[in-house]
Amino acid sequence: MSTPLRLGIAGLGTVGIGVVKIVQMHSEMLGRRTGRDISISAVSASSRTKDRGVDISGYAWEDNPVALGSREDVDVVVELIGGENGVAKALVETALAHGKHVVTANKALLAHHGNALAQLAEDNGRSLRYEAAVAGGIPVIKSLVEGLAANQITRVMGVMNGTCNYILTRMENAGLPYDEVFEEARKLGFLEADPNLDVGGIDAGHKLSLLSAIAFGTKVDFESVVLQGINAVSIDDIKLARDMGYSIKLLGVAQMTGRGLEQRMSPCLVPETHPLGQLQGGTNMVVIEGDSVGQIVLRGAGAGEGPTASAVMADVMDIARGLQLPTFGQPAETLVDAPPAVVSTGAPWYLRMVLLDKPGALAKIATILGDCGVSIDRLRQYHHDEPHAPVLIVTHKASSDDITHALEMFEDCGVVVGDPMALRIETV
Amino acid sequence: MSTPLRLGIAGLGTVGIGVVKIVQMHSEMLGRRTGRDISISAVSASSRTKDRGVDISGYAWEDNPVALGSREDVDVVVELIGGENGVAKALVETALAHGKHVVTANKALLAHHGNALAQLAEDNGRSLRYEAAVAGGIPVIKSLVEGLAANQITRVMGVMNGTCNYILTRMENAGLPYDEVFEEARKLGFLEADPNLDVGGIDAGHKLSLLSAIAFGTKVDFESVVLQGINAVSIDDIKLARDMGYSIKLLGVAQMTGRGLEQRMSPCLVPETHPLGQLQGGTNMVVIEGDSVGQIVLRGAGAGEGPTASAVMADVMDIARGLQLPTFGQPAETLVDAPPAVVSTGAPWYLRMVLLDKPGALAKIATILGDCGVSIDRLRQYHHDEPHAPVLIVTHKASSDDITHALEMFEDCGVVVGDPMALRIETV
Repeated sequence: MSTPLRLGIAGLGTVGIGVVKIVQMHSEMLGRRTGRDISISAVSASSRTKDRGVDISGYAWEDNPVALGSREDVDVVVELIGGENGVAKALVETALAHGKHVVTANKALLAHHGNALAQLAEDNGRSLRYEAAVAGGIPVIKSLVEGLAANQITRVMGVMNGTCNYILTRMENAGLPYDEVFEEARKLGFLEADPNLDVGGIDAGHKLSLLSAIAFGTKVDFESVVLQGINAVSIDDIKLARDMGYSIKLLGVAQMTGRGLEQRMSPCLVPETHPLGQLQGGTNMVVIEGDSVGQIVLRGAGAGEGPTASAVMADVMDIARGLQLPTFGQPAETLVDAPPAVVSTGAPWYLRMVLLDKPGALAKIATILGDCGVSIDRLRQYHHDEPHAPVLIVTHKASSDDITHALEMFEDCGVVVGDPMALRIETV
Repeated sequence: MSTPLRLGIAGLGTVGIGVVKIVQMHSEMLGRRTGRDISISAVSASSRTKDRGVDISGYAWEDNPVALGSREDVDVVVELIGGENGVAKALVETALAHGKHVVTANKALLAHHGNALAQLAEDNGRSLRYEAAVAGGIPVIKSLVEGLAANQITRVMGVMNGTCNYILTRMENAGLPYDEVFEEARKLGFLEADPNLDVGGIDAGHKLSLLSAIAFGTKVDFESVVLQGINAVSIDDIKLARDMGYSIKLLGVAQMTGRGLEQRMSPCLVPETHPLGQLQGGTNMVVIEGDSVGQIVLRGAGAGEGPTASAVMADVMDIARGLQLPTFGQPAETLVDAPPAVVSTGAPWYLRMVLLDKPGALAKIATILGDCGVSIDRLRQYHHDEPHAPVLIVTHKASSDDITHALEMFEDCGVVVGDPMALRIETV
């Protein structure tokens, strides 16, 4: 065995404790598989005395996590604090500058500062790794950077926020309205302190922006991810979609188009016959399409102590084995600025709206769609025991621009009650 | 860029041509992602003049593929000849002995000689890689060796022969009998020259034995894989299974048990709600279960020019990037001999048989099962417009030993017509 690899762990929440457990319980296995002992030198967390169910008394303690970044007895800093700025960022920068490798589960940090941090890591000849930041235990970063490296990636898609998928599948399976299931998820502790990170699609958007950078060799550009949350999805939408053979998923899609890099995270209709449509509960799924390999689907737990710690430790073991690659699969300086695609690729759309029950209302809607260049595939006034008439329209392929235009015109046309719902029907 | 990585390719069939195409078409991308030029120095195949649709005139030609293994201008030998002995083995041995890295898609070779070849590679400080040997384009070797390396693997399962899955799903979807679909598959060119390699489960068994070695740190032991082909699966079995909510799949399962290493490749009933049960046509799927990560599912094309070449080139790119690991994820000398589990773990079983239509026949069968310690969960005499009475039995959990014992007793009991069908119902 060569010299041991020594970790400094910042953050002893669920994932941090999971990492400590793997190091403590599987020490022989880790050594056999990497040829090195993997040990923990020091840790830092909010409370030193809290009972976490594991013995951390053998590790040095730092009140200030940033101090882990300059300790002589630390080779790899494991950053599990989270947050796009503040202590997490300071720690990662300090560690890289001091020649430590960094393993992190922090998608927000990398989505906002990934380009600069990747450059910093490469300037210092060290690894900055983040398998745990995307889709929990699924080895998706490794699959994209290494396993499918010979492919020109044509599209990356995924359901990457377990909480949203829990909410949507629970609505579908139990027939419950959004608000009720949202409260249920809150009580179960599934939601972030700021729930909008989950249901607003932000967390999943962070993840998508990292996959985009690897897939297309572009700079991380989270700001250009078009975000739409799930909070406007009603139980009616879910039922109507199911009647047509679709499930509604918070789906991330990234693809390079003639108009630039398209990145969007939004509720979409996906065929219930596709693995994406069948995904239940908190499970994550990433679909990668390459010019040679075709479609690869990866599925697994998107969060939780074990799965996330598994991903963190895979990164640590790669470092122990001497595997070192640029953060996004190619040198940071070669990542290009891709113009964001303002208009997304065409797709059929699902439109649901409520019309005033008066003569000519439907004709007005149809005319607006026609004027916007959107042609109707199916139209159904689907029940009628109310003062108003709910209408479901499925369009032929239309651009997001044309749909947006039509939605704007609906606002002022005098026959639409409330906000129409518009969801892409994704081809998978 | 550092020095180029130079390939010698043996075998210019579908996969070989796919590899040549990637090297020719994606040269810039490969260089950007690996930091090195990847070039082809020499090739060898059965015919030099055959039109393969790619220009190979710039590459040196070897009539004898083994000669590629000692060429000074070759850093990596890509072995795409196939076969467990003969030229393929001679080439791989020659190449490793001459300090070349080897990338191969040859599951038969590794299933039979993997232990010795892994040792030879390590003795020479070179890589022996085989991502393309298992599940085509799916990065399953990388996921097991690296992505899930922090896990004690508890079970590996998979549908890893596309031809068998094509036959079974075609039978299910079209309601056609085995023989008819088998002929269809033969005409479509889906079958190996010796079809028993496919339908006898041998090819898939080869693959399973490689996954076992990585997962459990054991020597490759193909001889101990319990094989059962799909040729006895009837359309009746498929329909009866579907009525109960199952699909029949040629499923490989490897797990370490208290009684030794269990490796089996056999048609099983799997729930149609699980991704394995939903797998259609030639697609492959591997399910990996680890103590931390839980269940990871990987799905993709199991064969074909693009997917297999994608996997070959991923290995080549890893070598170009300087990533070097032992063949089975840990040094060959640390792989242990695991006793094969003679009796597999208990499971419910599906039994279908035809009984003579006479009093007491059913009682006799029930008595035999009881005597063998097998208890019945469901029993159904499922139609009766024949001279004999077909019977479907679903058992409670029973060991393969007890089921085998019961099947032997059925033979001599005087009421069973023909051979009963016994299929495990796999818990997934």
